[in-house]
Parts: sequence; structure tokens; C-alpha cells
Amino acid sequence: MECLQFLHMNKGEGETSYAKNSTLQMKIMLEGNPLLEEALNGILYNNDNNNFPETMGIADLGCSSGPNTLTVVSKIIGIVYNSTRKTGQPVPELRVYLNDLPWNDFNDIFMSLPAFYKRLKEEKGKEMENCFVTGVPGSFYGRLFPRKSLHFIHSSSSLHWLSQVPPSLDGEDASTALNKGKIYISKTSPPSVLTAYSLQFQKDFSLFLKSRSAEMVPGGGMVLSFMGRSSGDPTTEDSCYQWELLAQALFALVSKGVVEEEKVDCFNAPYYAPSVEEVKDAVDGEGSFIINRIEAFEVEWDGDLELETNSSSGIMCCETLRMMSRGERVAKTIRAVVESMLTCQFGRNVMDELFTIYSELVDDYISRTRAKYINLLISLTRKS
Amino acid sequence: MECLQFLHMNKGEGETSYAKNSTLQMKIMLEGNPLLEEALNGILYNNDNNNFPETMGIADLGCSSGPNTLTVVSKIIGIVYNSTRKTGQPVPELRVYLNDLPWNDFNDIFMSLPAFYKRLKEEKGKEMENCFVTGVPGSFYGRLFPRKSLHFIHSSSSLHWLSQVPPSLDGEDASTALNKGKIYISKTSPPSVLTAYSLQFQKDFSLFLKSRSAEMVPGGGMVLSFMGRSSGDPTTEDSCYQWELLAQALFALVSKGVVEEEKVDCFNAPYYAPSVEEVKDAVDGEGSFIINRIEAFEVEWDGDLELETNSSSGIMCCETLRMMSRGERVAKTIRAVVESMLTCQFGRNVMDELFTIYSELVDDYISRTRAKYINLLISLTRKS
Repeated sequence: MECLQFLHMNKGEGETSYAKNSTLQMKIMLEGNPLLEEALNGILYNNDNNNFPETMGIADLGCSSGPNTLTVVSKIIGIVYNSTRKTGQPVPELRVYLNDLPWNDFNDIFMSLPAFYKRLKEEKGKEMENCFVTGVPGSFYGRLFPRKSLHFIHSSSSLHWLSQVPPSLDGEDASTALNKGKIYISKTSPPSVLTAYSLQFQKDFSLFLKSRSAEMVPGGGMVLSFMGRSSGDPTTEDSCYQWELLAQALFALVSKGVVEEEKVDCFNAPYYAPSVEEVKDAVDGEGSFIINRIEAFEVEWDGDLELETNSSSGIMCCETLRMMSRGERVAKTIRAVVESMLTCQFGRNVMDELFTIYSELVDDYISRTRAKYINLLISLTRKS
Repeated sequence: MECLQFLHMNKGEGETSYAKNSTLQMKIMLEGNPLLEEALNGILYNNDNNNFPETMGIADLGCSSGPNTLTVVSKIIGIVYNSTRKTGQPVPELRVYLNDLPWNDFNDIFMSLPAFYKRLKEEKGKEMENCFVTGVPGSFYGRLFPRKSLHFIHSSSSLHWLSQVPPSLDGEDASTALNKGKIYISKTSPPSVLTAYSLQFQKDFSLFLKSRSAEMVPGGGMVLSFMGRSSGDPTTEDSCYQWELLAQALFALVSKGVVEEEKVDCFNAPYYAPSVEEVKDAVDGEGSFIINRIEAFEVEWDGDLELETNSSSGIMCCETLRMMSRGERVAKTIRAVVESMLTCQFGRNVMDELFTIYSELVDDYISRTRAKYINLLISLTRKS
């Protein structure tokens, strides 16, 4: 699918931007904090000579842009810094690599770096001059970094994106389309669709691990979090129902004659929500990493937002959110993520209408069901 | 000056963009090619064990965006690659760092990277998978990279930009302005202006060298090229006359009542064209580098364009250029570089008129004089 090459979160700072609609992802990221701390301290203290490393390579893969990007970097730096204060050791030289696809809005991140560095030095002192943030554009399904250059890798809300739509599902020809009327795995999808998605995930996730394996120092740590599912069955609602409703919304536009049915039939999302077992299988199969911990936790579709004004973490002002229905909030969150992809297939001018219908469908669904995602949280160590 | 923080080449691909108006800088860059080759081979062959380094850190400082950015990277990679073919050695892992200020258009560079990598692999083979291009936003007047991480540094058409307007010239108060009616050193500027500029250059260039000294491996090489002057006298025409005419153009707008005279009186360019001796003094004073070669060469104001269509090097199509007067071509080149700064001080809506007047002044000047810049080209080695 040509559209995949344009996959990026909505840019800028506008109403439909990812920067303004990434509270859910922030919430998911915060869930990973205890594991971040455990993993980083494991790296710092796990030395034969009890000295912290002199230099640390730290990467955030699928960093996107907006408030979440530098929040996680701050968190990681803060953990390392606090450990040095506790032990009296010097702060390692910190090489921080922000990675995303080349069409991510790196300009937006880079423009906020001068203020970020300033704050870092004010809060933590002159040693922070040895912190170097760089941008690394490219797909994490492949090599991104020099050999053995990384000590720690973080990735949140990114690895559920596949490198491509499973090839057997990716065609221009609606007459031979395998997953007609759906845009992801559905209760009514034929088994071949389920298999195609599962195989693509195994292939992609194995390549991810193999690439990181080459890039990490032995003993290096990795904390990953991404969408998954609660059961072995990929048609379970917490795995795919957000796509089911999006397909329904697209079909409402087909009925109105503004979207061609063939375009929906041919479209499949380059997404997969694996089970814990599938992740374990891929890690065991690749062989370079030990799983320290793997957890699944639930997140409400609308992030169960407490609707607090929290400007420091960039959480959207409560007033705007309070005025919206839960369905509208969910639709805004999803739109900020998938709009670039859908625009490529269905055109820009149907987006407003699509997400209005979608928000109504979500409101209806939420009124009947406790709609939740399952998020997987995994801590791994590169074998020595 | 608040405006300095917005200094960037004109973004995008439009008529006034730097991408479309950087042929002069390309020409200047090409002049440095023999020195690039000499310096890189010096690093590759200068090993005790006759083996090429396993990994090479290569930085382009002030990379800007547009066709020039990846052209110089290609050239550098090509030189390294050719040396490995001649000697049968493996290609080192190439870490390529593209640096510019945070408001540079990095998105534009990053989006052209997939095609760049593809071409690299097609032309030079699978070994090129070990080439990693990253973006490093920040001022090169300060640390940008980890200690001893770089083997080679390139910078072209950037180091004539100072870190700031000399503080004694940078004020809001027109009544105490030292360089009234001028925006850079001029025949009529008082000696204090000349001294202030010279001191700022020494301070900045020394800090540049000190920062690079920490970042480079012993024996590492650096090829720099930037605007300079032919004589000790900083009021010589090849040093400053482009600014003299720009001040005249601004004053034409003052006469018309569209620009306030005070704004011109208070404005000074954060620019300096040093003499060869000033550069040598700064290098000797800092002490970490040996000058292998220092040359000055002339460039016509309009780049002495051969007006050839050269799409591979991104040189602007001849037809568009042929239709313009030389003054218009010069004005377009200058505008792409200084517009962000001038817009901040004088407003966006006077820019078209300003550069129309400027192009006429340049046409008049060029008809009477062979208008040329002096460019300095320097090759340095980090002492062991």
C-alpha cells in the first residue's frame, strides 16, 4: 500500500493534531514508568567495577512529535540523574536518539530543544551539557544505529504498526480482496486474513529484535509498550473493535455515495495487536533477548481521562475535553493517528464527516460496553 | 538581537526558497572537493596498522536543507568508498551527522533520505547499509557531539555567521546606535564597530574550535569554507559591499516611509568576513589544530553561473535564470539566506520591494565593478 509511506501522526498544533490529541498515549507511557526505572537502574548498576558507564546511548523509537516526545526523554534522563546523585557518580555522557519515520514532524521537536536543554541545565546543573539529542529518521524494522551503540531503548505506542499491510491483503483489485467490507481483522474475516496478519507481525517483530540486537551493548535494556490483546483469539473485541467501527463509518459514507465501496474492500490497516504468547514466541525465536517482565493492562478507549489541567505533562485543557462526548474524544485520538493513512486512500474531503459518524458509533458502543484497549508492557535485556 | 534565533535559510521549495537559490553555495562547496579528498584520505590511511577505522563519525555543520545538503554527504561517502575499493578494505561504519540550527528545515532533508539510501545501496552495494544519517539540531558555537566521536568535519558557507550581533552594536535604542545607517562594517563605520565585529569573530571561532577539539579523535580532519576577505582592512569592498547595498535598499524604503529609519540604525548583521590572518590567529590561539592548508578564492556575486541545466547537482534550470538580470540573480541568492532575519526586524510585507530595489542597486554596481566575494578554504587536523 502506497499510503503506508505517508503514515505519520497529524502534524502541527491544530485541533486535529497529534500534539493536541495524544493524552491516551501519554497515559500509556506513564504506565511504563516503574519498568523504565527498573530497567535503567539495571543497566547503571550492572557493572563489574561498580562504575556507571561513561557514555550511554538511549533511543526512543517511534518518538512522534508533541508533548509526549520530550516528556519520556526527560523521564529517562531524570532516572539516570537521580541514580548518579544517590551514588555520587558522575552523570554519563547521554546520547539521546529520537527515531521515527522520515515524514514525522522532526522540525517541531527540534524547535523545542533549546528550551528543553535550558531547563535541563537549570534543574540538574552544568553536567547536563553532556546530553546530546539527535533525530534518527527511518523505519525501526531495519537497522537504524551503529553496532553496539545503545544501552537503552524505549518505544511506546508504535510497535503495533506493521512495516506493511500483509502482502496477500494488499491489492488494488477489489474483486479478489480477501477482507471485503473490513479494514482489519474482524469476527467475519476468513482465517487467511488472521494468518496473514499474524505472520506479518512475527516477521516484523523478529526483524525489529534482530536489528536492535545488533545495535545494543550486551546487558542493554529495552522497555516496549504497544497495543495487544487479552486472548489468543485475534477477533476478540479489545483487539479490533475500534477498526470494526471505523469500517462501519466508512460504509456509512459508501451508502451516501461519497466513498467507493471498492476502496474500502481493498484497504487494510498495517496494524496488529498481538497476544502475550505471540510476543513471547517472537522473542524466543529471535533469541538475543531475555524477557524480564511482560504485562498486559487495560486502557479505556478515551484514556479514562481525569480531565485535569496538567500543562507540565501537556495534557489537553479540561474545558475543551469536557465539552465533548466520550465518542468525540475517542474519534479525535484515533483521527490524529490514522488520518494521514486514510486521507491517502479515501481523500481529505471526507475526513470530517467520517470522524463525525465514527464518534457517534463510538458513543453508541460505549453506552453499551466498557470499551477498552489492551496494552502490552515488556521489559527485555540483551543477552551477553 | 531576538531575530538571530530565527536565522534560517528560506524553507520549502518555492521561488524564494534556499533549495531553489543555493547555486552559489553549491559552487563554493565544489571548490572544496580536492581538499575534502586529501583530508579524508589522510584520515583513512593514517593508521599505525594500515587498517581503515571500523567506524567513522562524519559531521556537516550548517548543513541547511535543499540539494546541497545530501550532495556533500554523497561526495564524502563516495571518497571513503573509493578508497576502500582501491585497497580492498571493508567500508567503515559511517555515522553521518547533519547539523544546523533547530529552526532549519530538517523535515525536508529527512524526507529525501529513503531515496538517498536506496541510491547509495544501488550504486555501492549492500555494505552501504552501515551508513547512518542523523540530524543534530543546535549551534556549532558550543558542544554538539560526544567526546572523541568524530573523524571528519565539513562546513561550507556557514561560519561567516556569528553566534550573535556584537553586544555593543546590539541595541533597541537608535539614539545611541554606533553604526547608524549601516547594517554591517562600512567605509564610514567608526573604529569601535570594526573592533566589535573582529572581537566577536575571535570569540566565536575560538569557541567553535574548542568545541570541535573535544569532539574529534586525534588525527581527525576538518575542511571549512566560508566568506572572508582579501586584505587586512575589513572595509574593503569584497568584504562588505553586499551589505552596503542592502543598507542602501533599506534606506530607499525609509525615504518612501515604509521602513522606520530607527530600525535600520539599530540593525546589524551577525556576520563577519575574516582575513586569512585572523583565522590563523584564532587557530593558533586555540591550539588544538594544525592548519594543513588555507586558501582564499574569488567567487562572482552571481556565482559566475554557467547556466547549465544540471539536475543531478540540483542547479536551477537555466531558463528561469537566463530570464533574470545578474542583479536579480544576486538578490534571489541573498534573499534566500537573509530574509528570515530581515523579516523579523522590518516585517514580511516590505521584502518583495526591498529585494527589487536591491537587485537594481546590484545591477548598477555590477555594471561598474567586477563584484566578487572572497571565500576562505581551510583544511585542519586535530593534533594528537
